Amino acid sequence: PRNLKSKFINVTNNVKKIGQDDPRRVIHSLKVGVALTIVSLFYYSRPLYNGFGVAGMWAVLTVVVVFEFTVGATLSKSLNRGCATLLAGALGVGGHHLATAVGERGEAIVLGILVFILAAVSTFIRFFPKIKARYDYGVVIFILTFCLVTVSGYRVEELFDLAHQRLSTIIIGAATCMLISIFVCPVWAGQELHNLVASNIQKLANYLEGFEGKYFHSLEDKEESKSLLEGYKNVLNSKASEESMANFARWEPGHGGFSLRHPWKQYLKIGTLARECAYKIETLNTYLNPKIQASLEFKCKIQEPCTKMSSESHKALKAISTSMKKMTQPSTAKIHIENSKYAIEELKVALEVISLEDVELLTIIPVATVAAILEEITISVE
Amino acid sequence: PRNLKSKFINVTNNVKKIGQDDPRRVIHSLKVGVALTIVSLFYYSRPLYNGFGVAGMWAVLTVVVVFEFTVGATLSKSLNRGCATLLAGALGVGGHHLATAVGERGEAIVLGILVFILAAVSTFIRFFPKIKARYDYGVVIFILTFCLVTVSGYRVEELFDLAHQRLSTIIIGAATCMLISIFVCPVWAGQELHNLVASNIQKLANYLEGFEGKYFHSLEDKEESKSLLEGYKNVLNSKASEESMANFARWEPGHGGFSLRHPWKQYLKIGTLARECAYKIETLNTYLNPKIQASLEFKCKIQEPCTKMSSESHKALKAISTSMKKMTQPSTAKIHIENSKYAIEELKVALEVISLEDVELLTIIPVATVAAILEEITISVE
Repeated sequence: PRNLKSKFINVTNNVKKIGQDDPRRVIHSLKVGVALTIVSLFYYSRPLYNGFGVAGMWAVLTVVVVFEFTVGATLSKSLNRGCATLLAGALGVGGHHLATAVGERGEAIVLGILVFILAAVSTFIRFFPKIKARYDYGVVIFILTFCLVTVSGYRVEELFDLAHQRLSTIIIGAATCMLISIFVCPVWAGQELHNLVASNIQKLANYLEGFEGKYFHSLEDKEESKSLLEGYKNVLNSKASEESMANFARWEPGHGGFSLRHPWKQYLKIGTLARECAYKIETLNTYLNPKIQASLEFKCKIQEPCTKMSSESHKALKAISTSMKKMTQPSTAKIHIENSKYAIEELKVALEVISLEDVELLTIIPVATVAAILEEITISVE
Repeated sequence: PRNLKSKFINVTNNVKKIGQDDPRRVIHSLKVGVALTIVSLFYYSRPLYNGFGVAGMWAVLTVVVVFEFTVGATLSKSLNRGCATLLAGALGVGGHHLATAVGERGEAIVLGILVFILAAVSTFIRFFPKIKARYDYGVVIFILTFCLVTVSGYRVEELFDLAHQRLSTIIIGAATCMLISIFVCPVWAGQELHNLVASNIQKLANYLEGFEGKYFHSLEDKEESKSLLEGYKNVLNSKASEESMANFARWEPGHGGFSLRHPWKQYLKIGTLARECAYKIETLNTYLNPKIQASLEFKCKIQEPCTKMSSESHKALKAISTSMKKMTQPSTAKIHIENSKYAIEELKVALEVISLEDVELLTIIPVATVAAILEEITISVE
């Protein structure tokens, strides 16, 4: 029983942590609960039940499958589902008509061939990277509806009735999801993307800030500073989530400071630059390993320009991140970048005077990258 | 019309390319077509139709949703779907019973509360990273089935009939998928993972091979060699696909040289090491930029040990990659690593004699990483 108790406490802590990390998760769960309850009761109340028949369960199914964490994802799935059902329904009725025209005997064969061709072609289409990213769900629903309609074995008049019912229930389900996800504590994929990119740049800045102290002054690890230093590791693998969010952000209407045609692709470019910078920081990080010894004397000589370089570039990154959050021009960042470029020159002079060790010139690279990032951002913020 | 024609040719070329890149995609499309046709006709043939009723469409639905590219993904979805339906069905009948016991008036309220609680809790559970990775689909199906069963408004006896029908049709659909995906040209996620990791290491080796020629002998870019050099960029972002494949690989039965309990997690570790190595190569790559000039004289002096280092480490990486493909002990790799360690020592001696420039010591790091990779691999191949 003790073992069980400790396990239980463990799970409870886990739940608390996930809830506290992002309280919107709890709200999202409640939103899904509300949407499902509304649709279920709608379907359950008898007068409506008689109107829609068994098709009412499609409303429930739609809500469960379509409701996602961000508004963009919900919209994209709802619209995909709606359009695919419509298109596949129309094609399905056509296919069914064709099969019936052939006569009793050939019917099954024609149907089999049609289903086979449509299924194989659609599945192949799903391998196209562009379609995979945006319309994957739509294609799945297309195959599904087409098969169900052609093979259902109903007469055509019945089919129209059925299609009408099913479409209206799907619309009810999808509309419930869209309304709730947009108007009750919305989580915008665009906003998320914006924050993610800004916080990634912030993390790089934090690292550079910490690096200087640790490398030149051999400061002791404190728990807090260590987590600041480790932050950049998340940046390394942020590509997939950035791309999916940019995809969802396209589907969203204008919100907050973002218009409908906000240049989401620019965020991907900034993200890529931030990642490149993170790769360099990862390499730089190896030199914090105490096993790699460098001559102390040499370290002292280059300390000044290096410190300046890293502090100016972290200030520049911070300024960029803040101005992104406030959606203003990063004018102060420009000054810091100028300063850091100047520091690079200083370092070169210092290096010419003395004999060289290998380590610190690496710090140049982030600075160069920062300059590149800045250019991109000035374009995209404008 | 010309514009249309060129667009058409463009699309055709795209289709050809996707098919040629991986012919298994075409085969997969055909497999899905066959599975759907079988299930559809099964559902269409009248005698069976009378047996299963409308529930037959669940077989079609299952096939469309469950059939994935790799065996592991198909199995994982099928089993998730089956178990979730069973569990949710049982709970749903219980919930329905409870609601009926309360009496006509409170029924709707009790049902609403039950649906709300279950939906909110399940949605929250989906945020747990572990459950997200492995049982996400199962939880969705669980919510879906539970809602449909509790709210259906049937009497309990009818419910059992319905549940029986639905479960058997789902089993038919899932079994068709599983059999076809396992026995007709199977694509094993485990094998894919194995190949991916091995080819990633190969790409790193290619880069190091090309780097030496380009850096020290300033060889001209040929198209071919350029693509070899660019190969490592794919390694940088391979994390997501490696993780999902390792997840699917767990569900697969033993196949080829892999047993049921193959240590898939080891591949993730090797993958991480390969990525760390790729980050370093990314940094190294910046020095190929002709704008960064280094003194030629100095370059000559360190050329010999550096060439040795990079050639030995690319040989070591190649040996590791080949021995992974053949599933043997990487014994030759050990020799190359010893050699490259020796080359590091040589470089150190050379550096002590002359004054230093910053660039080339970077090549040390891949070698150190290689040593680490090797250790891991010897463990996992055993």
